[in-house]
Amino acid sequence: MTDLKLIRTIDVPDLDDIATGGAILGTGGGGDPYIGKLMAQEAIRRHGAVSLVDVDGFAADALIAPVCMMGAPTVMTEKLPQGEEIVIALRKLEKFMGRQVDGLLCGEAGGINSTTPFVAAAATGLPLIDGDGMGRAFPELQMTTFGMHGVSATPMVLGDDKGNSVVLETINNRWTERLARSATVDMGGSALLAFYPMTGALAKKAIVRGTLTLCADLGRTLREARVRHGDPVEAVRAALKAEIIFNGRVRDVLRRTVGGFARGEAEIEGLDEHRGHKLRIAFQNEFLIAERDGKTVVTTPDMITLLDAETGAPVTADGMRYGIRVVALAYPCAEQWRTPKGLELVGPRYFGYDLDFQPFTPGAARQAGPA
Amino acid sequence: MTDLKLIRTIDVPDLDDIATGGAILGTGGGGDPYIGKLMAQEAIRRHGAVSLVDVDGFAADALIAPVCMMGAPTVMTEKLPQGEEIVIALRKLEKFMGRQVDGLLCGEAGGINSTTPFVAAAATGLPLIDGDGMGRAFPELQMTTFGMHGVSATPMVLGDDKGNSVVLETINNRWTERLARSATVDMGGSALLAFYPMTGALAKKAIVRGTLTLCADLGRTLREARVRHGDPVEAVRAALKAEIIFNGRVRDVLRRTVGGFARGEAEIEGLDEHRGHKLRIAFQNEFLIAERDGKTVVTTPDMITLLDAETGAPVTADGMRYGIRVVALAYPCAEQWRTPKGLELVGPRYFGYDLDFQPFTPGAARQAGPA
Repeated sequence: MTDLKLIRTIDVPDLDDIATGGAILGTGGGGDPYIGKLMAQEAIRRHGAVSLVDVDGFAADALIAPVCMMGAPTVMTEKLPQGEEIVIALRKLEKFMGRQVDGLLCGEAGGINSTTPFVAAAATGLPLIDGDGMGRAFPELQMTTFGMHGVSATPMVLGDDKGNSVVLETINNRWTERLARSATVDMGGSALLAFYPMTGALAKKAIVRGTLTLCADLGRTLREARVRHGDPVEAVRAALKAEIIFNGRVRDVLRRTVGGFARGEAEIEGLDEHRGHKLRIAFQNEFLIAERDGKTVVTTPDMITLLDAETGAPVTADGMRYGIRVVALAYPCAEQWRTPKGLELVGPRYFGYDLDFQPFTPGAARQAGPA
Repeated sequence: MTDLKLIRTIDVPDLDDIATGGAILGTGGGGDPYIGKLMAQEAIRRHGAVSLVDVDGFAADALIAPVCMMGAPTVMTEKLPQGEEIVIALRKLEKFMGRQVDGLLCGEAGGINSTTPFVAAAATGLPLIDGDGMGRAFPELQMTTFGMHGVSATPMVLGDDKGNSVVLETINNRWTERLARSATVDMGGSALLAFYPMTGALAKKAIVRGTLTLCADLGRTLREARVRHGDPVEAVRAALKAEIIFNGRVRDVLRRTVGGFARGEAEIEGLDEHRGHKLRIAFQNEFLIAERDGKTVVTTPDMITLLDAETGAPVTADGMRYGIRVVALAYPCAEQWRTPKGLELVGPRYFGYDLDFQPFTPGAARQAGPA
């Protein structure tokens, strides 16, 4: 039986914090937080506030549907989505499945996708579960804890801003990614999705819990540190229990868009305590590997966040520019990703790096002696 | 009220003629007739013969669905389709639309697609209408007389041999082509479709009538001419009321696969009465433009068929090889294509040729004096 527990009500100003927090957990990817925030705020202004609820309140047979935007951040900045196509995708999924959705879910924590579910929740009045399918952002749609727990990404609906839609039914989530990626490219580089429909029972096992609350807390922490002229980087670091692995200036960024993905490498030149050292970050939409002076220090799925050294604002792979001063934070990913099944989906080898996952423990290097 | 008029029953041996006739009307495209024939014969062996019926027997509100294969002929020869995925596509279309299909229809006359509807008709027991949406083959799915009469290509289902499927709903048929083409490429180069669902009333206006009977007649004509050691090329020419525009040897073929299409140009060197002359044929899957000694003689949508000079067997753009002897026939397309609306969809300018359509009339050049 469904007996919803309200965690909090999310209104227009809350989206500022959630978008910022999403961009922090977005680890360089997940899209421009500004766009997602505008969409969600507009939807809440028009339709009213959103109920953020605990997954445990849903009945075992409730129907839960994650919603999100798919697309390459480098393309998204040129094309402002309207947002409410996400509701069309959701309604088409309901029609295709012949039943109504009981609760919405966030697909990934990222600048855009931590906020797109609020558009759907505001417009439909459906409750939004506090959690997501990654605890961070990842570039491909099969890279979810939902999939790890055996949830099929299909039936899935993609909709665009012109009125086209696609329903996919596939034999596995890799096929879904392949077909959805092409459709997204055809649709102009971004599409709105309703996918991974699952029961309440499965959702309770398969989600990363508390992600949207964490986004809101991280955003608030950063905002408050700025208001009281504190140290915003240190405030975010403390909230994440992260380690500062580097402090420097972006010297070089190689970037290309391949099949809808922004891929590349950034080189950061050390300053202050890191003067004379170098950090190299490899990314595929998200930051995936960090190498300090040629030694691998962080590997996907563990988290690498870049913050602007002055303002503490998260810096995306797409937003990195020559000369900007950044601080690199590293911290552990959601525990479920560190299992063999998780690493198969999102470990370094899946992305083509000839490396094993090496769990990152904040402070471990310092405790073990000089690096 | 539905009151079906049976034209004839189609059994295993009939498919030999229909596939050959389809390849003749395929005007160089439409796929390898051998593959389609095998699929249809196997389906009829397993499920029984097919009823070929007149469109006029269907009720105005009957639901008619064309079925076909989409894909590039150059890719298809490497991947043998199973065929019965076409039934899965059809059933998914029925489920999506919430009603059953009353009659099947052929999408295009071509080596493959004149026969794929027989797979669906045999497996489901549904009647197959004698007609199609092109009266020939064309490379893109919006190039149909159905579309000319305002029928939307969607809802449309694509299925592959692995078990993946895609349902499209689009704002126009150009968008359908775009999204379906990408999905087909993803699916390995070919997909089975059920599309352009339409009422009986619309089907009566929107189809090219009699296409499958014409295919069967052309195939039989060619077969009988061979059996009695007659002139197979002349027999086909006479059946089509076509003109022989060239007789020669393939000297050069430029071919590339672009976005799932086989595009190119062929040069044919004259023999006998055409010695010293040259024919150039431009194709995009199908033969679209013929130019004799630098002068345009046939333009799409009028028909260009190449026959092997000895056997009379139709030669596809994909099957053209250096040195083979061919005879080029030209003849008028279905009358509806010669309207302004038809030429907008399939005239030379749509394909990127800087030419107006010039209606081809067999024998006109001869009557007007020396070429």
